[in-house]
Amino acid sequence: MNPLVQLISISCQAPSLQDNSGDIDRLRRKVTEKCGKAVQVPFSSMVRVAQRFRAAGFSGYAVLNDLPQGMELVDFLEHKPNILPVLALDLGTTHLEASLLNSSTGEQLARRDTPNGQIKFGTDILSRIHHSSTSQGRAELQQAVIGSIHDLAQGLSAEVGCLVADIRAIAVSGNTTMVHLFLGLDPASICREPYIPLVNWLDPCSTRDIGLDFHPAAPVWIFPSVGSYFGGDLIAGIIAADLDSRDGLALLIDVGTNAEVVLGNKEWLIACAGAAGPALEGGIARMGMRAGPGAIEKVRIDPDSYAIDYETIGDGKPRGLCGSGIIDLVAAFYLSQIIDIRGKFQLTRCPDYFVETIDGPAFMLVEAQDADGGEAILFTQVDLDAMMRSKAAMYSILTTLLAQVDVSFADLDRIFVAGSFGKHIDPRQAITLGMMPDLPLTTFQPIGNSSLAGAEAVLLDGEKRQRSQELPGKITYLELNVNQEFMIRFSGCRFIPHTDPSLFPSVPQFAGES
Amino acid sequence: MNPLVQLISISCQAPSLQDNSGDIDRLRRKVTEKCGKAVQVPFSSMVRVAQRFRAAGFSGYAVLNDLPQGMELVDFLEHKPNILPVLALDLGTTHLEASLLNSSTGEQLARRDTPNGQIKFGTDILSRIHHSSTSQGRAELQQAVIGSIHDLAQGLSAEVGCLVADIRAIAVSGNTTMVHLFLGLDPASICREPYIPLVNWLDPCSTRDIGLDFHPAAPVWIFPSVGSYFGGDLIAGIIAADLDSRDGLALLIDVGTNAEVVLGNKEWLIACAGAAGPALEGGIARMGMRAGPGAIEKVRIDPDSYAIDYETIGDGKPRGLCGSGIIDLVAAFYLSQIIDIRGKFQLTRCPDYFVETIDGPAFMLVEAQDADGGEAILFTQVDLDAMMRSKAAMYSILTTLLAQVDVSFADLDRIFVAGSFGKHIDPRQAITLGMMPDLPLTTFQPIGNSSLAGAEAVLLDGEKRQRSQELPGKITYLELNVNQEFMIRFSGCRFIPHTDPSLFPSVPQFAGES
Repeated sequence: MNPLVQLISISCQAPSLQDNSGDIDRLRRKVTEKCGKAVQVPFSSMVRVAQRFRAAGFSGYAVLNDLPQGMELVDFLEHKPNILPVLALDLGTTHLEASLLNSSTGEQLARRDTPNGQIKFGTDILSRIHHSSTSQGRAELQQAVIGSIHDLAQGLSAEVGCLVADIRAIAVSGNTTMVHLFLGLDPASICREPYIPLVNWLDPCSTRDIGLDFHPAAPVWIFPSVGSYFGGDLIAGIIAADLDSRDGLALLIDVGTNAEVVLGNKEWLIACAGAAGPALEGGIARMGMRAGPGAIEKVRIDPDSYAIDYETIGDGKPRGLCGSGIIDLVAAFYLSQIIDIRGKFQLTRCPDYFVETIDGPAFMLVEAQDADGGEAILFTQVDLDAMMRSKAAMYSILTTLLAQVDVSFADLDRIFVAGSFGKHIDPRQAITLGMMPDLPLTTFQPIGNSSLAGAEAVLLDGEKRQRSQELPGKITYLELNVNQEFMIRFSGCRFIPHTDPSLFPSVPQFAGES
Repeated sequence: MNPLVQLISISCQAPSLQDNSGDIDRLRRKVTEKCGKAVQVPFSSMVRVAQRFRAAGFSGYAVLNDLPQGMELVDFLEHKPNILPVLALDLGTTHLEASLLNSSTGEQLARRDTPNGQIKFGTDILSRIHHSSTSQGRAELQQAVIGSIHDLAQGLSAEVGCLVADIRAIAVSGNTTMVHLFLGLDPASICREPYIPLVNWLDPCSTRDIGLDFHPAAPVWIFPSVGSYFGGDLIAGIIAADLDSRDGLALLIDVGTNAEVVLGNKEWLIACAGAAGPALEGGIARMGMRAGPGAIEKVRIDPDSYAIDYETIGDGKPRGLCGSGIIDLVAAFYLSQIIDIRGKFQLTRCPDYFVETIDGPAFMLVEAQDADGGEAILFTQVDLDAMMRSKAAMYSILTTLLAQVDVSFADLDRIFVAGSFGKHIDPRQAITLGMMPDLPLTTFQPIGNSSLAGAEAVLLDGEKRQRSQELPGKITYLELNVNQEFMIRFSGCRFIPHTDPSLFPSVPQFAGES
């Protein structure tokens, strides 16, 4: 499998007058012989390696980093360690999620998440780019995210029983701006036409280069990006779904700050991204929240009595609605005719459920007394409109992308839905709203945090590292901002399920079942 | 020629919506296309390269380091610089000699030498190794030599009109211990059986790794060594003499602290080293000195009148004797029968020239009143004995080495004599003493400081860098310390010219000519 960090068992003859090659030369020769590749010894590791090799009596375990430019010999251990911890990181704009793996076995030892410490300098990407316009601002943003990563690493290490300084590698998957800020690079040109990052494809650097207190020889492996609006997190997702090595045609849908979509198989890949995300991730609705304890993730409304039935993550009192909850709610509104096909509230249908707010009438999903925090959970027309735009954008993105390569939805044998959105969404409701194509429900496969899964995969598998590095050159990126067809399709999608209901033959049947 | 540091002229399209690859990616792609090799961008250089590339309007000159592991893109210049300074260094135990070259043209811009600042911690290698037994001692020795290199670099830069921070590479050629101390590596095991260096073959490191204030991206290219007693300085000499690429068989003789000898051609190389050096370099005789102003380098003694005729380097008053002066003097002693064939003074021959000292009778070469410094230049039996041992060692080394591969002196078409010893020595006198084989005088070719010349060569020529890295694996090293034949030959060489005078048929003729 060729993990990024490898242990190789070594047994060398002791030096003698017959073989008086230098310690490092002797070890390098043996390691080269064993791994069959050229081996470098970075100057910063040489003294440590030489001392430990000699102290161990010239036998033990060499630690190697398998980097694109060759193998790096970075340590020598007398005894085989119980675990060789390496860290996978999904570097999200709002949250970081990380897992600690044992590089020797591939086992996931622990997994945690934490808010991105950069949030105090701005919740969205644009305000962070603005804050990074001075070198002091860039340093603050870098230190903030490094601090969050240290917090995660600390928690994971404590859980596993190792030290942060034992972590021997980090693989990072993030959007292009987050990667720039993580590395202290100036992201200014990312958000100005023609939207150029400082760099998409990086050689691995060292944790010391960026102030991470991991093992001093730990490499930082970063997923390449395709451009300003197509980051390494999606490359990681493609790797996690093996989209680029499948015979059959598949779609990968990742809904984060943007909706990012990749279509293809082992022969070709085409991708695009668009602003369909926030509502779907619970980010726009007033009571929206990230999928986590207290988030309403499922909603049913009886079409006759309008009685509401919901489920929260963790089964506790509700605090808000996550993305899948919002989709469920809006689908339920539609199926019980509380909204019309344009997504507008029909206030006369169940007037008792509506209260007046400064944003106009709002549907009361949970009364204050039943909510965690004591604030009623409301859903307004403003929220509905945002949701309608998001769902329209999503479907338009999909149809535009498929049309570009003359493929129809029926040609797809799989739709991978990434993220917490993918994890909790019910494809039936997404089809009902006309957000996802009307395909057999088994076509839809939730794959969780594919950004993190991709980072885990490259820590463990050299072939996947190789593929991920070659991916940016294989992906055709379709720019939607200048795409006329997309705008036309977007207008057609602003009904439930669609201006052309024949595209969604299952919806009446779903309505009958609900 | 592929110099170590290269300028490549680059003209890129400005970014656009049609080609929105990142700045670094755009530049890397163009450079890769132009140089036809994989190009890395070290993290520490990325921000500088990106800023300058953009500021230059995406056209100008990329600066690349051509390293064994691939090309490194380390800088971008808007305009072609007048010079691209790189430094060659002969890292000697007593002296450092350096030259500044223009990497773009190969021109030598300036050349300087300075005493090795480590001398204050010990004049010889063993005392330096002793001082380096603590990490503080190692740090002091490293700082001392780095200080000397900075002094040299400062002087060279001032002469050329550039800054030390403009120097973009350093190639270092030194013996194994000097290289260890330069890099701060522990040399302890070098002088203990089985005489193992920490490392012989090093990947290039960065000047920042060792505290050299050159350009931050300057690589440190270090000649590999073969073992503790066969250093990179001799590898550099082989490269300077092209010994490893000649059809004809040749010898390379480098007399420094040790006498180091390499025999071979493009097919094979065999080498050995022995303690023949100090006397020959002017290091043992009481009035010995390094070849420099005031050193007597030539001596004639009239066999009838015993009148002395000498020449000094720089034509000033004499201060002492350099190695070639000692050889000339002893040959003159022999030809005028002031010493016998065992190298013993015949005090009755010219008693007026002898004075009594605590070391016994001494030949007065220069009276106090004629000497620079006012101290008479004397030569004692102790000095003579040291010289006899050195000359015997030298000839024994040569015959032992040739016998090992069944080659006779007549098979040699060239003897390269390196160092200031080689520069000033008269081969006729060396043959007279039986130190060098009795071959046509045109066989002997002085090649000056071949260690420095080798360092210059690898700065300018990729093929020579490649050869020098492969050389340690091609050289058979003959260990003389455990060689019985060497000891037998050594005894046979303790006469002038030799126990078997038929090996030196030209000597009677030289005597007639003198």
